[in-house]
Amino acid sequence: MSHPATTPPAPTPPVITIQQASRYDGRTVVIQGWLHNLRRSGKIAFPIVRDGTGFLQCVAVKAQVGEETFERIKHLTHETSLRLTGKLRADERAPGGFEMDVEDVQVIQAVSPDDPFPITPKEHGVDFLLDHRHLWLRSRLQHAVLRVRHSVIRAVRDFFDNDGFTLVDTPILTPAACEGTTTLFEVPYFDEGSAYLAQSGQLYNEATAMAMGKVYCFGPTFRAEKSKTRRHLTEFWMVEPEMPFVDLNDIMDLAERFVESVVARVLDERKEELKTLERDVSKLESVRRPFPRISYDDAVKTLQRKGSEIQWGGDFGNADETLLGEDYDRPILVHRFPTEIKAFYMQPDPTRPEVALGVDMIAPEGYGELIGGGQRIHDYDLLVERLNEHKLPREAFEWFLDLRKYGSVPHGGFGMGVERCVAWICGIEHVRETIAFPRMIYRMKP
Amino acid sequence: MSHPATTPPAPTPPVITIQQASRYDGRTVVIQGWLHNLRRSGKIAFPIVRDGTGFLQCVAVKAQVGEETFERIKHLTHETSLRLTGKLRADERAPGGFEMDVEDVQVIQAVSPDDPFPITPKEHGVDFLLDHRHLWLRSRLQHAVLRVRHSVIRAVRDFFDNDGFTLVDTPILTPAACEGTTTLFEVPYFDEGSAYLAQSGQLYNEATAMAMGKVYCFGPTFRAEKSKTRRHLTEFWMVEPEMPFVDLNDIMDLAERFVESVVARVLDERKEELKTLERDVSKLESVRRPFPRISYDDAVKTLQRKGSEIQWGGDFGNADETLLGEDYDRPILVHRFPTEIKAFYMQPDPTRPEVALGVDMIAPEGYGELIGGGQRIHDYDLLVERLNEHKLPREAFEWFLDLRKYGSVPHGGFGMGVERCVAWICGIEHVRETIAFPRMIYRMKP
Repeated sequence: MSHPATTPPAPTPPVITIQQASRYDGRTVVIQGWLHNLRRSGKIAFPIVRDGTGFLQCVAVKAQVGEETFERIKHLTHETSLRLTGKLRADERAPGGFEMDVEDVQVIQAVSPDDPFPITPKEHGVDFLLDHRHLWLRSRLQHAVLRVRHSVIRAVRDFFDNDGFTLVDTPILTPAACEGTTTLFEVPYFDEGSAYLAQSGQLYNEATAMAMGKVYCFGPTFRAEKSKTRRHLTEFWMVEPEMPFVDLNDIMDLAERFVESVVARVLDERKEELKTLERDVSKLESVRRPFPRISYDDAVKTLQRKGSEIQWGGDFGNADETLLGEDYDRPILVHRFPTEIKAFYMQPDPTRPEVALGVDMIAPEGYGELIGGGQRIHDYDLLVERLNEHKLPREAFEWFLDLRKYGSVPHGGFGMGVERCVAWICGIEHVRETIAFPRMIYRMKP
Repeated sequence: MSHPATTPPAPTPPVITIQQASRYDGRTVVIQGWLHNLRRSGKIAFPIVRDGTGFLQCVAVKAQVGEETFERIKHLTHETSLRLTGKLRADERAPGGFEMDVEDVQVIQAVSPDDPFPITPKEHGVDFLLDHRHLWLRSRLQHAVLRVRHSVIRAVRDFFDNDGFTLVDTPILTPAACEGTTTLFEVPYFDEGSAYLAQSGQLYNEATAMAMGKVYCFGPTFRAEKSKTRRHLTEFWMVEPEMPFVDLNDIMDLAERFVESVVARVLDERKEELKTLERDVSKLESVRRPFPRISYDDAVKTLQRKGSEIQWGGDFGNADETLLGEDYDRPILVHRFPTEIKAFYMQPDPTRPEVALGVDMIAPEGYGELIGGGQRIHDYDLLVERLNEHKLPREAFEWFLDLRKYGSVPHGGFGMGVERCVAWICGIEHVRETIAFPRMIYRMKP
């Protein structure tokens, strides 16, 4: 069926994302997205649409869109997918700075009113939200957290890439435990017995650092710890740099520069998101070098003065870390822990072997340990001694010992868990919201 | 003991990396590294030192360094760690463009002549090399491969970051299998039964794409396949983009732009390494859009003409992929495979439901499938039907079905395994050298 052409066809409006709105002021465009919210008031409707890049407030006036379209808009259900056509208009009051005057709406898939989107603006319990994590991710707050996470990860990679480090991914399936097997996930591996999911890439980093110079690995790590604190996940991402020819001071310098640069990058890139999260950014703006450096000895004295029951030789609990961090407006570096409470590979201080050349970076505001690291033992005989003391199977560590036989050098590095860092930067209570699908002792779904 | 000061102390020479040599032409510097090689000829010795950033040819003349130092240099063992002081001198013949005239050498840790570095310039079997992978990584070829890998990973991330994608890491520990459990690694998970190591982040990507728009995940994935081909690892890294509001053509366009940009980046950043690998770079320079797009139907006819036994309905074997790729100087896109041989979630072609809107990108030169992807089923009822046909447990996929209930939209994406891409770009035979510590059916050590 053909009609005689009376007017030329209207040009098809461009399909854009909400993020691109500012480039299309005054123009008619198409936005594809989901209905986030809808207010109605008589002959006007105010749909808010999200498309992943942002949220757009829209205005549909019955007299302009016509009765049929207005009815369709009025009955749109939450999270219905749609294609909206309309003219963009700058409006300072609108979040994002633009509003759309709706001209037309096409529904892609309507959410049934009989089976509505389960997450509503009312309060939900955390178990309900985690059971619906695949849908909870559509909320404004979760977007903000995950975008901060993306910026943190980019900042981490850019920092090391620009600082002369080579990324060398270390394996997840590993034959031996770094520090005993009680907190390891075990995986039957063909005819080779059991593999264990890596808790850290450090031992491998030591090998690649002797080959490639400054290296880092950055991937998921696993701890089968039965801890249910707000600071722990069983699966989390960790970045671990390792450097040859360094001492503890070099490692602390790197950690400081690194964390300063990550925080600065997020402040620069994620202003909107931090606002959405109601984060007090002044607490992040003060994260500037130098960070206070405090010996374990002094930290214990400070803690005792503040009422902690800690004795010299003991490890810090969460409460201790909070107490230590609360006096400072930036992270602190606590160094030279008792050798006994640290991992077998930690280099003892040559002037005082009862302390090891390790360092923890403790975040302010009660976020606990951000970074742990230090200098590794580079002497073959001392490492053998430590393996024996820790009753670790020598055979599993032969390759690790090789690194002390064939051109050993002083070396070290650290690890930083991404989720704890993101929680701190976002100022949120629990690490479980800093990763898309958190894994905890009682949760591995969806 | 103090001496009367007659001359002011010589300034300490700067400690630099080999990569920085060009900035220090004519100056005395200190290089920290490992002895890679040593030639001697009477009163001259030619140590080659590596420090992870490069290799430096050095010259030690007995008359200049003195007898004692010369003796020390003459007896240096392979991979001994050392600190070399000397003057840098531009020399076009030297790899890297500089040589050092040695003035002094300090040994950090001498490799014992009774227990020499096990990897020598002579030929070693691959099992021996893989058993000593922690040391094999010190070789020039392995450096080159791992640096290309680093560039590929940066190129991948930069491509998606700059194209409006949000990185959303998907979980490794997952409750259900994407496509049956026979090729999955199983992990006992506290009281929650078994978790499985993720083979793909795609199902989760579909959820995050509906929340965040264009997304990608990039992490290790696991296949417990008993295949021993040179193209397979049990643990490998995969990048998977996913986009809402797209069709198969959009997905092919993205795949093409993506691979073109990754190859261009490596050509730009890793000239030296590709030279070390003796890679014919003309084979990479031809990787330019558009890539040929061939339907599965036509591909089968071509294969039959070339002598393959394949029949319509069958999947390509490695030999078929090689045959298909050999006629082209760039990757090809094969699309619209029989629905029956593809995953349950693949969208059938509406005009011809016996084929699915999927695409494989096949590399030239026999490197096989680089990318697999396509459009996903967005209709709830059709997806339920497919779950039933594939006898998959509905309950485990309820959350996945939710995505078709609450604002479903046409969507799709693809996955690319990093190791296969690196092997192709490097022009090396086996994927096992493209990752620092490869995991294969008979190997998870060191």
